This record gives sequence, C-alpha cells and structure tokens, in this order.
Amino acid sequence: MAPNLEPYFKEVDASADSFIDRLRRAVAIPSVSASDENRKDVFAMADFLANELTRLGAEVQKRPLGKQPGKPHLELPPVVIARYGNDSKKRTILVYGHYDVQPALMEDGWATQPFDLTVDEKGRMFGRGSTDDKGPVLGWVNAIEAHQKAGVEFPVNLLCCFEGMEEYGSEGLDDFINAEAKQFFKDADAVCISDNYWLGTEKPCLTYGLRGCNYYSVEVKGPAQDLHSGVFGGSAQEPMTDLMYLLSRLVDQKGKIQIPGINELVAPVTEEEKKLYPDISYSMENLYESIGSKTSIFETKDETLMARWRFPSLSVHGVEGAFSAPGAKTVIPSKVIGKFSIRTVPNMDSNEVNELVFKYIKDEFKKLGSKNTLDVSCQHDGKWWVASPFHWNFKAAAKAVKEVFGVQPDMTREGGSIPVTLTFEQATGKNVLLLPMGSSTDGAHSINEKLDRRNYIEGTKLLGAYLHYVAEEEMAA
Amino acid sequence: MAPNLEPYFKEVDASADSFIDRLRRAVAIPSVSASDENRKDVFAMADFLANELTRLGAEVQKRPLGKQPGKPHLELPPVVIARYGNDSKKRTILVYGHYDVQPALMEDGWATQPFDLTVDEKGRMFGRGSTDDKGPVLGWVNAIEAHQKAGVEFPVNLLCCFEGMEEYGSEGLDDFINAEAKQFFKDADAVCISDNYWLGTEKPCLTYGLRGCNYYSVEVKGPAQDLHSGVFGGSAQEPMTDLMYLLSRLVDQKGKIQIPGINELVAPVTEEEKKLYPDISYSMENLYESIGSKTSIFETKDETLMARWRFPSLSVHGVEGAFSAPGAKTVIPSKVIGKFSIRTVPNMDSNEVNELVFKYIKDEFKKLGSKNTLDVSCQHDGKWWVASPFHWNFKAAAKAVKEVFGVQPDMTREGGSIPVTLTFEQATGKNVLLLPMGSSTDGAHSINEKLDRRNYIEGTKLLGAYLHYVAEEEMAA
Repeated sequence: MAPNLEPYFKEVDASADSFIDRLRRAVAIPSVSASDENRKDVFAMADFLANELTRLGAEVQKRPLGKQPGKPHLELPPVVIARYGNDSKKRTILVYGHYDVQPALMEDGWATQPFDLTVDEKGRMFGRGSTDDKGPVLGWVNAIEAHQKAGVEFPVNLLCCFEGMEEYGSEGLDDFINAEAKQFFKDADAVCISDNYWLGTEKPCLTYGLRGCNYYSVEVKGPAQDLHSGVFGGSAQEPMTDLMYLLSRLVDQKGKIQIPGINELVAPVTEEEKKLYPDISYSMENLYESIGSKTSIFETKDETLMARWRFPSLSVHGVEGAFSAPGAKTVIPSKVIGKFSIRTVPNMDSNEVNELVFKYIKDEFKKLGSKNTLDVSCQHDGKWWVASPFHWNFKAAAKAVKEVFGVQPDMTREGGSIPVTLTFEQATGKNVLLLPMGSSTDGAHSINEKLDRRNYIEGTKLLGAYLHYVAEEEMAA
Repeated sequence: MAPNLEPYFKEVDASADSFIDRLRRAVAIPSVSASDENRKDVFAMADFLANELTRLGAEVQKRPLGKQPGKPHLELPPVVIARYGNDSKKRTILVYGHYDVQPALMEDGWATQPFDLTVDEKGRMFGRGSTDDKGPVLGWVNAIEAHQKAGVEFPVNLLCCFEGMEEYGSEGLDDFINAEAKQFFKDADAVCISDNYWLGTEKPCLTYGLRGCNYYSVEVKGPAQDLHSGVFGGSAQEPMTDLMYLLSRLVDQKGKIQIPGINELVAPVTEEEKKLYPDISYSMENLYESIGSKTSIFETKDETLMARWRFPSLSVHGVEGAFSAPGAKTVIPSKVIGKFSIRTVPNMDSNEVNELVFKYIKDEFKKLGSKNTLDVSCQHDGKWWVASPFHWNFKAAAKAVKEVFGVQPDMTREGGSIPVTLTFEQATGKNVLLLPMGSSTDGAHSINEKLDRRNYIEGTKLLGAYLHYVAEEEMAA
C-alpha cells in the first residue's frame, strides 16, 4: 500500500454520511444546461462548487465564457477552476468534471423526484446528476477534505477544471482550455477525467478511447400554423409525412447507418485489435441487465463491445413541434424538427460526416417532391479520442484500483463522447486518463439516474489513492 | 324579412360588447377535456353554461355520465341539457354544441395567452375555444337574451344539448342521446349543430356531410428505461428506429394511404357528384390563405374539395415518449407511442378499417425482425355522416343566411368529424343541419385559434333568424 493510504481510507469511511449529504445538496440544484429557464441554477451550482473548494483552502476562480452562441440573451455558465497545493517538488494533476446535468422531469417517468437525492435500502442513490457528473466531481472535493481531516499530506498539486455546459456541447470550453493550457494549467503533468462508467457493476475499468458525437436537427415546415386534420387532412402536404420518411431512412434495425459514405470513413478492424476483446470482463448478461431487456442488436460480447466502442451508431432521439403528450390531438403540425445523432469513431472527420449527412437528407427530401421546406443542421459536434494506456498516469490508476477494489481494471474504450478529453490532450500535450466512478447500471441521461453508495465512497478512496500512486510512479511511461 | 327580425337584429348589435364579454369569460376557463389536470375546469365550464341558461329562464339540468372509461379516477363532465319554451303550437329545435376545448400552451407558439380572449384591431378574437365551440354555443345563449331584451317572442321551443368531451371522442354521449331521444329530446322536430366552419372567409355555408375519424396509437417498447445513446447506441435495438419505419409506411406525400384495402372501402365518385363541385365558391387561394402557405397536395379546387370531403386522409400527429423539447438530448427512448388518425368517408366501416390498420402495422413490424414489442390500438373512432340538404330545416337556414349575409349559402360537406351528428340523426330520426358560425381561417385545434367579431355577432343574428324561418317553413321537405 502507498504510504498514508490507510488513515485516508478510514477518514473517507468515517465521513461517508457527510459526503452523501454534500451530493444531496448538489443534486438539489437543477443545473440543466439545455434549458434556458434553468440557466440560473447552473450558475448556482457553480457557486456551490466554488464555495466548497474555497472552504477547503483551494485557490478558486469562476471564469466567464461570454454569451451563448445563437442565444445572445444567455450568459454561458462559468468554468470553475481551482488550484490546491503549489509545491514544485510534487507532481501536478489536472482534473476535469462537469456540474451541469441532463434535463429531468417527473412526467418522464422518474420513480422519485429527480432533484431530491433518494437513497434506497440497497444503497442506490437516485437523482439527476448523481453519477453524471456531480458524484465524481464531489469525489475530488471529498478527497481533499478527507486528507485534511486525516492529517495526511496531499500527495500532489491538484488543478481543477469544472464546466457547466458539458450536456450541451461544452460551448466555449475549447477556447478556454487552449488559452489556459499555458497559463493556469501550465504545470499539469497529466490529466484525469472522471465522467464515464464501468463496463459492468463489479469491476472498475480505465478508459483510453471514446466515441465522438455529431447531433443533428432536421426541420420540415409547410403551413404557417398547425392545422386541423379533419379540415386539411388530404389537401395540405404534411411536414410530419416528410419527416417520418427522412427519419426512417437513417439507420436499419441492425444498427447499420444508411447514409452512403459514413461507414467507409471507419478505420478497419485489425487482427491485433480483435484479440483485445475476449479478455474483457463483460457478458451479454451485463448488457441485458443494463438495458433491462434482451433487445440487443448482437448475440455476442465481442460484437456488442465493438459496436459500442469502435463502430459508429445513429440514434433518433425525438421530434420537436409535433403532438407529444398522452392522449389524442387531431393536429397537423406546421413545423417539426427531428433530432438524431451519430456517434463517431476513428477515422471519421466531423466535417466530412456533416457533408455526407446533409447531402443524403437533402437528396432524400428531393425524391419526395414535397412542397414543404427542409433545413438540416448540426447542432453540435464532439470529436472521438483514442490514447495510449501504457503511460504512468494509467499505471498509477491501475495500482489504485487494485488497492481499493482488489482487482486489475479492464482497459476499455467507451461509447459515449467526452469531447473535452481530446481538447485536453491536444492543448496540454499530456496523457489523459479516464477514471470512472459509476457503474453500468447507473442510467446516466435516463430516468432514475443513480450512483451506488459503494461507487461513491470507494470511488472517493480511489481518486485519493490514484493521486498517491501518481506521486510514486517513475516519469518514464 | 320574417316578422320581428329587425328589432332582434338591432338588439344583437346593441349587446355586442356584452356578448363578447360573455365569450371572454368562457374562454378564460381552460376546459381541456384531453388533460386529466384540467378536468375540474371542464366541470367549471359546465357550471358557467348552466348558470347563463338558468339566469335566462331555461330549465337546465347537468346530467352526469359516470367514470371515464380506462380512467376510473376521473368523472366524465356532465351533459348540460336545457329547455327554453314549452309551447305545443311551436316547433321544437334541438341544438348541440360542446364546451370543452383542445389543449393549448404558450410554448406551442401562441402569440397571446390562449385562455385570455384578445381582440385585435381587425376584430379577430383570439383564444382557445373561441370558434371551437364556445362562440357558437354562446350564440344560442345570446339569441335567447337578445329576444328577451328586444321584447320579441321566441319563435320555437329550444332544446339544448351541450357536452364536455367532444375533443376526446365524446365519451359516454352516444348512450345518453339514445336514452334521451325518447325522453328529454322527444319533442325535437329537427336538430341544428353549430360546430364547423365556412369554406372561406366571406360566404356562409350549410353542411350536409362529415368525415369520420379513427385515432390510433402505435406503441413500440424495448429497454426497461431510456438509455444513453453513447453507451448503448449500436448495441441496443431502438424503439424509435422501428416506430419511424412504421410511421413512414402509412401515407405518401400525395396523401395516398398506403394501408392495403383502405382505399377500396371508399364509395366511387359518380358523374352526378362531380357536377356539384364547380359551383362551390372556393378557390385554391382560399386554401393557401387558410394554411398560410402554398403547400397544397393538389392544384385544382375540385380535387382539393374532394380530398377534404369525400376521400379519406391519414395524418401523423406526433410521438409520445421521445425527446420533444427544444435543444439536444442524447437519449434512446425506451418506449415510444406514435399517434395517427384516419379521416373516414362513405362506405368505410370503422371495424373493417381497424382490422386493416392493425394487420398492416403488425405485418410491417414483422418484416423488421425487431426484438422490440409492438402494440397498436384504436384510441377512439367516430363515424362519417351524409344527410339530405333538401329538408325544411336546411331551407330555413338558407333563408336566414340570405337575410343576414345577403347571399345564398354554399351546400357543402366537411372534412372534420362530428360523430354526434350521426348519433342525433339515428336516435331522433330527424333531419340534422350543420350551421357553422366561424370561418376557414379560424384555426380550430391550432395555435392562435380565433373567431371574428363579425362571425360571432352576425352569427348570433343568423341563429335567431334560422329559428324564425324554421317556425314559418312548411312541414313537407
């Protein structure tokens, strides 16, 4: 065991209830970045985080990012940056997280109030943002506090970068990181991001690859206002008819993207790469448990993991402007906006993907001979990322996992996108590690999002232990 | 001019502001029958109507209809029935209307508060329910009041039947009408319904035919909860993929229904019928004005009117359970419900239509080989109706139109469904007349629904004049 870990671990256990209360206070702030009305709450969450860090003695700044592009009435939430420790003999680790969350409404089907952290008898802590990403962000705060209470010297200098727009394309953050890479973040020796999930529910993993995400809007409009389907059904062209056709032409039931040229951008699978998959601790049962059904596309683990990690996917998320409530409404919607996204992988170039998508949708629309008007645009895009897992940053994290959980972590890639990962790598030129806290059943972005008590408390130990092993690791990777 | 019409007309003009205020008070009650939360408001609207009628000396009853089928916690709103006058020497006219309205939210895009009647400089009175159907219902109330104030004897005995569930399939009303046909409504000599619209904006019409409406839900479900599209995109089958396919297979851009067998149920167009269309006062410009764009399916008036009146149509209304808000949400919805409806015409049998729809959707779903689960059902259906326009009931209405508006009305059919029309015809065995008050640009069921001041005030004159001519007409049709 690294020196001083035992008193630190004991203090984390002793402070568990107080750490959970800290998470409860954070979840209570509905910091939904996609919603204009909740912008004030995103700011309130920035204040909460800044106050917690300041109280523990960190040097904290809330850095404004200006107006939101396309929404001049909205200020972007600040980046909360902090330095804890300034000892030139210690390594400096830059950690990233986000304090904004996905939208959540009771009527979406939550079993408990989404912004009221509710702990059940199994230790599952339900609440929007519990696992994505307030739990992990507070894990760093908890780690500092537990070191202080235990009287254990903090093993590294810690730099924090916590943003408030991750769930809405991290607006403004790239420029900020690029500018601060040679300023506030200039001492960083490596980067650690805790914003993804274990593959299953028992075994931690370290993640060295991510998919990107290009998010699209397809708008079809015709009449000047919604119409009565009795009066105008059959005589007015209906935007929904066109949109349903376009959205039905994007992907098939086997998950294969139908847009010509997209699949050709994907890096071919090598024989060496194929050999990585059989050892990963994952089974189809894990998938079935995570999704709560057996409605998988593939029947084998290897195909499933490759589909998640190294092939693109396309999901249709919904339709804005059409009737979406329970019950019946006999309306012809005048303007409807289909939303879909493509998860991207090496070597897909975002601009090339956009061009293929725009061309295909416009071509398909032309085929319809519709008098309605089409507009297709990319709402936001985030790049994919793949890094080397043999750096000391990963080795330290692997030792910490072994220490806290007693197992070697799986070395994995991930299906979700955290575009900032690539930005940090490029801006700092340092190795970036993804060190997840939550498990595969946490339901990030879903109803009933949760973080298990075990993952939060042992996860806080893990973050601290990682920093201790970082301090010990040889420089050469 | 029929005797005594002049003082009645003068009184209507003198009372115009008070009649508009009555409509304002009615619109302020959000009597949305499709929404559970607004059920109390639907009851409040029944009280409002009953009080107005009682104050004018009518004998009024609020008749309960029991629990709502499928929603045992909800009472159906009452039918407000009333008798005004009981003179066996006079004819008795049964009038029907509804006091419930379609849903309406500011965020749907209303320019003014939907439940706050807002009159602009052109005399357009905006508000949910203004034209559908609170304006026409209050037209009968206004007519009684203006007769009293003008000291003009009411020319007929009036029976009222005002329901509160029209926008949600008129739950419970058929049984009620069938039972009361030989009780409260037994003296009725004819029926008049004011719940549709002029073909254009200048010339009134009398309507002798309606399309029916079968409303469907197509539910596809897979995962137990919504999923993160980054984590599960590509490995879980997505219900939205299946639903988009199914909804894209229902109707083409020319409005042709793709469900095999449906079009074969439609009565063939006769040569005699074709000759009726050229005389109708309607133009493509009227259609363009109504829909606010030139996105028509057809290029000629005759094709357009036939598509609206005597051919079926299919409209896709929306998707429940998917992302429907502005912005971006990277969710894979676990359960999505597509909503669509078919407008039916002679000789389509509702059960036959349902069977064809169910079979087609199930067959198409099978083709997908999806592991998701499908459920398709008919939420509600309403029958089509066609009547004889040569009855004294129609002749009286035509004279009234000529008197008030100075023109012969167009004899039309209508694309919308008012299933109760057929129920009244079958239950009473009497002629049913549709006498619209609103115009084609009123936007019933849309945002910014309105009723023009002219249509409301002259329409009140029309309803009264119709009753005077009814009193004069020969019995033989």
